[in-house]
Amino acid sequence: MAGPNPSPTEPPAPRGEPMDAVTVLVCSSCRRESDGPETPRPGSRLADAAGALAGALSDPGVAVRRVACLGNCSRGLSAAVYRPGCWTYVFGGLDEASGGDLLAGARLFAAAADGFMPWRGRPEALKRGLIARVPPIDLLKDLP
Amino acid sequence: MAGPNPSPTEPPAPRGEPMDAVTVLVCSSCRRESDGPETPRPGSRLADAAGALAGALSDPGVAVRRVACLGNCSRGLSAAVYRPGCWTYVFGGLDEASGGDLLAGARLFAAAADGFMPWRGRPEALKRGLIARVPPIDLLKDLP
Repeated sequence: MAGPNPSPTEPPAPRGEPMDAVTVLVCSSCRRESDGPETPRPGSRLADAAGALAGALSDPGVAVRRVACLGNCSRGLSAAVYRPGCWTYVFGGLDEASGGDLLAGARLFAAAADGFMPWRGRPEALKRGLIARVPPIDLLKDLP
Repeated sequence: MAGPNPSPTEPPAPRGEPMDAVTVLVCSSCRRESDGPETPRPGSRLADAAGALAGALSDPGVAVRRVACLGNCSRGLSAAVYRPGCWTYVFGGLDEASGGDLLAGARLFAAAADGFMPWRGRPEALKRGLIARVPPIDLLKDLP
């Protein structure tokens, strides 16, 4: 698998990030049980904040996207973190200020030589907030 | 995307199921908090039972695999259900007798024209036990 940080001489991907970038996918429809029905929803505000932080970081190895919904409704706010060819991680129990933790986890994941998001150095919110991890579909054929 | 039930005139996939089969991926390391340390673990027994049921059904559109671990440790037993090009669903709160429910959900998913696991007709255990769902990586580039 190509590494997540291609050299700057490679042609840019269509949306400005490498195709093998780590993607933080924020659930924009999430709200906690204690939240009211106001819009934009807290998940949407987390997505905006994470996107703004990613813009400020300007790291071509990390992208932020939004989707509704990740199905983790009773344990939100929620986000999934993808890296092509690697396991996908789902996190819950986040809040509107979790954008920095998500990006820190994404950058750690992008730099991992073994393709797993390291436990050591992972922000606390992404340790206690792990909801699930699923292997890449290509791996299924090799499993017993 | 090719449908999950290719015609019987297509060449068989290397492992005896079509490459676009729905796969039930059972977490073999799962145990509930009330379970003791005995082995094989309850998750492993669920994987065995689901595999045996799939063998009895002999549906080329559904396969069972096992992996340790899906990271849903405090909400086990756990399984993920994959269909190529579609969202992946993670379920928790299962027990050793959930193999039939997992296979029923997998067959419903395999037959879904829109690529989503239908809510209507889904076994109750897969309604109340939804932990998360994540979109296929190919979809990420199209998200805002």
